[in-house]
Amino acid sequence: MNESLTNPEQFLVKAGEQVQLSERPTQSPDFSLTRSEARKSLRDCVDVLALLQHRLYAENSRSMLLIFQGMDASGKDSTIRRVTTGLNPAGVQVHAFGMPTEQDFANSYLSRHWDRLPTRGQIGIHNRSHYEEVTVTRVHPNLLRSRGLSLGDINDDFWRERYEDIRAFERHVARQSHTTIIKFFLHISKDEQRNRLLERLDDPEKNWKLDNSDIRERTYWDDFQAAYNDAISATSTEWAPWYVIPADQKRFARLAVAEVLAARLSAMDPQFPKPHADFESARHELMRS
Amino acid sequence: MNESLTNPEQFLVKAGEQVQLSERPTQSPDFSLTRSEARKSLRDCVDVLALLQHRLYAENSRSMLLIFQGMDASGKDSTIRRVTTGLNPAGVQVHAFGMPTEQDFANSYLSRHWDRLPTRGQIGIHNRSHYEEVTVTRVHPNLLRSRGLSLGDINDDFWRERYEDIRAFERHVARQSHTTIIKFFLHISKDEQRNRLLERLDDPEKNWKLDNSDIRERTYWDDFQAAYNDAISATSTEWAPWYVIPADQKRFARLAVAEVLAARLSAMDPQFPKPHADFESARHELMRS
Repeated sequence: MNESLTNPEQFLVKAGEQVQLSERPTQSPDFSLTRSEARKSLRDCVDVLALLQHRLYAENSRSMLLIFQGMDASGKDSTIRRVTTGLNPAGVQVHAFGMPTEQDFANSYLSRHWDRLPTRGQIGIHNRSHYEEVTVTRVHPNLLRSRGLSLGDINDDFWRERYEDIRAFERHVARQSHTTIIKFFLHISKDEQRNRLLERLDDPEKNWKLDNSDIRERTYWDDFQAAYNDAISATSTEWAPWYVIPADQKRFARLAVAEVLAARLSAMDPQFPKPHADFESARHELMRS
Repeated sequence: MNESLTNPEQFLVKAGEQVQLSERPTQSPDFSLTRSEARKSLRDCVDVLALLQHRLYAENSRSMLLIFQGMDASGKDSTIRRVTTGLNPAGVQVHAFGMPTEQDFANSYLSRHWDRLPTRGQIGIHNRSHYEEVTVTRVHPNLLRSRGLSLGDINDDFWRERYEDIRAFERHVARQSHTTIIKFFLHISKDEQRNRLLERLDDPEKNWKLDNSDIRERTYWDDFQAAYNDAISATSTEWAPWYVIPADQKRFARLAVAEVLAARLSAMDPQFPKPHADFESARHELMRS
């Protein structure tokens, strides 16, 4: 591995740390790579990831789960696309979670996430996740009423219990499935969000994504930041840490994410399985068949 | 699209055509690209595929299903890897089907394939498929006894009905899910298989894949070819055609597969969705929030 260009461990949220997003950078002032230098560095890092992924896939015993959260237009889709394009799709399982259906909650709000956990040897990527259930629903508790909860049930204890259940869920997955879990919050400023949404209006490859209700959500910006402060603080653990990645500059965010992955996957040190065939008899049989 | 380098439509099996694999080439004598030229051509073709894939994903209404079959060491894994690496993994769903479990047959032998059909906007890739159920089980009918079938049940009618059900299954998927289905048989010679298995013995990145039983399967080579002759002849349809791709030369097979995809995906002509937001009010609201 080359030396890190983004020093991403500075963005790790330590277990027990209280996060205030307003005090965390959305830009990395020290980062001076040009667009083409950053693209080249990202490509190099993806090449390293591809080699490690090949071993993880062959080893077929452990897996990775990457969770991406962030405000609208924070770059979740494009970061996932740029960091994973160049990997073998046979070893990557990406799921974008949209608004849940009634069916999704027939059992528990964790069910549909449970169903999409990466299988052995795979890098699973969740674009949005069960964290929507402690952020969107916290800002808009009315959503929970349609699931048979009354607003009186939704107090501090309610959220505390959800955090506890999420920590336990992730701990089980990390233990039982030998899954390395990493969670990324792509942190953008409200101004940068405006710029990106304005840009989308003018781009026919993107303007179909736009919904007037997305823009109305900006009214709740501070509420979302508060919900994320609490959720990230309560759920950054040793087995499933959060990184709050400055994301106003896309090229920085992508490279930082790729560098975290490369470091973590490298630390897993995946290996090709030991051969088990009887080579001598195999050779013999092949020569006469 | 550039002009085709492999002219892959010559390998299409027309609906109703009787296939004799022994009369079909495992090598393409006219193909003269060097390794590096072929690699460059493949990369160019994958770049075209990536642009089309981006639109298919955005369009989010149709999908593709690619099925890969072939003898051991025919290059299924590596062809899939080479043709799809460079696409956005968020739009590719690869499934490698191993030996089925008892659970997989609780309902029907098609169930696990049904469960893995690509969702809208996705390119689904099945590495082995329900065609194992009319080839492996045909060569080794004993496998069916553990599923409650007696050998007396397994006659010509039995296979004819399976082909019929598979045709109907694929027709339903093509219609109902707007899925373009393409099936590839990677056609290698028995000698080329020997060479590849011998190579594997000496490669620590591959020798763990080797099982002595794989080599013993070479005894059944002719039975497998006969089973494929029947299965391919009975199931190449307008809605789910087979291509029998000469695969002794990997670089040729990869490029031919990529060219078939590019042509088919290009014919689908996927489009970005029409925007539905009210842009004027969106712009207004963004400027003051």
